[in-house]
Amino acid sequence: MSRMQPIGAEGAAPHSAPGPGRVVLVGSGPGDPDLLTVKALKLLQTADVVLYDMLVAKPILDLINPAAVRIFVGKKGYGDTRPQDGINAQLIAQARLGRLTVRLKSGDPLIFGRAGEEIEACRAAGVPVEVVPGITSAQGAAARLTASLTHRMEARRLQYITGHDATGGLPESLDWRAIADPQATTVVYMPRRTIGELVRRALGAGLAAATPAIVAINATRPDERFAVSTLGDLARAVAATETPDPTLVLIGQALAHARLPEPVA
Amino acid sequence: MSRMQPIGAEGAAPHSAPGPGRVVLVGSGPGDPDLLTVKALKLLQTADVVLYDMLVAKPILDLINPAAVRIFVGKKGYGDTRPQDGINAQLIAQARLGRLTVRLKSGDPLIFGRAGEEIEACRAAGVPVEVVPGITSAQGAAARLTASLTHRMEARRLQYITGHDATGGLPESLDWRAIADPQATTVVYMPRRTIGELVRRALGAGLAAATPAIVAINATRPDERFAVSTLGDLARAVAATETPDPTLVLIGQALAHARLPEPVA
Repeated sequence: MSRMQPIGAEGAAPHSAPGPGRVVLVGSGPGDPDLLTVKALKLLQTADVVLYDMLVAKPILDLINPAAVRIFVGKKGYGDTRPQDGINAQLIAQARLGRLTVRLKSGDPLIFGRAGEEIEACRAAGVPVEVVPGITSAQGAAARLTASLTHRMEARRLQYITGHDATGGLPESLDWRAIADPQATTVVYMPRRTIGELVRRALGAGLAAATPAIVAINATRPDERFAVSTLGDLARAVAATETPDPTLVLIGQALAHARLPEPVA
Repeated sequence: MSRMQPIGAEGAAPHSAPGPGRVVLVGSGPGDPDLLTVKALKLLQTADVVLYDMLVAKPILDLINPAAVRIFVGKKGYGDTRPQDGINAQLIAQARLGRLTVRLKSGDPLIFGRAGEEIEACRAAGVPVEVVPGITSAQGAAARLTASLTHRMEARRLQYITGHDATGGLPESLDWRAIADPQATTVVYMPRRTIGELVRRALGAGLAAATPAIVAINATRPDERFAVSTLGDLARAVAATETPDPTLVLIGQALAHARLPEPVA
């Protein structure tokens, strides 16, 4: 829309470093615009360029500086991603034009956000790169469920895993004994395609079928949905929620304390 | 200071639910006020009452509604905590006065914040309770180090543990094999007192002594400090940083990509 709009002197952002441009990887959080950090909001409002993908919520895109160039870099999730090399090249090219270049990512860029590759590309190119953390989906869902992820005496360890890696399958060499620890809370990002195998492996490693589990879809967004389940029934519960939207699965005894929230105001 | 100040009609917050008061557990993030969420900032600015402890950064306390009653509820960390029951009782009593009662906690209330006890006390009392998530220390430190916590092909799992439980020692029955997984990133909250034993147990479970590790103190605050280390040298590295300030240890191959930041502006 504003992609071809020239950047005038008034586009220079107060947050731009003096001199050369820079890249800032900014976490947009789980979807509720009020869960942006103040720093993220300031950067969106002053960016010269914003690169974003399908996972960033629309109300957050609406907060971007109207004078900024917006560059859509493709759907992220199950394949269908514009090659990462192309994104890296665009970040570097924009920053080299002296622009405050924001790479907006859902959740936290440093938690299953593939930020490592963008950071290393910027470093290799000599382009300054910073990160602004974001509330990750696990935190957004837990807050809506008012459920501590480290409930005293029940969850001594909190772990995040992804339901698929770059190949689309479960990551190889996941530590199933760690995932089956009854004293941990486990959050699975993007579990939809692999939940059946994940449940089989967790059961096989000894985690009880009755372990509480919750499916969270679009948590913190107006269209959020939750399904209360157990490890044993989780594959069915996920399948029953047919949706292309961001889905998260939370597993562990701590989830027994969750309460389904009132609808988002 | 303003503890005894009466709450007038102008103290009624726009965010207060109509009718009865409520309790909101708010994450203050790792210390940089700009890492508050927008929602947390709005709540601080409109709260009738704020209960806080020593771990919340001073610049964040400065953002609290000047008309709010502030209640200091004691140092949190290594013992020296005002009994949790007393905090619970105060939250409930304040909310029952019809007040928007904010319980401000460092980091995220649902990650090693003992929120579970406060949530359950409110529920038992029939007092509405909500949670606003915060950037947890691990995310703040990782952002300052521009280090992905889930670096592709190197960190398939991210796990948070605490260096001490309510007894002050390492939690019993920690899953040391899970902690020794070379394909995980492990973040230890409050490791100072138990780091020696933690390192021995992790080495004993098979994690290589050369595994990269970083000590992060006050990350995102103007006085932040970092020490680059390895698992084998970590107890010495932590001891060398003698400080009562919030300390975090990050362990795993992904930390090899960390870069020490420029000082906080």
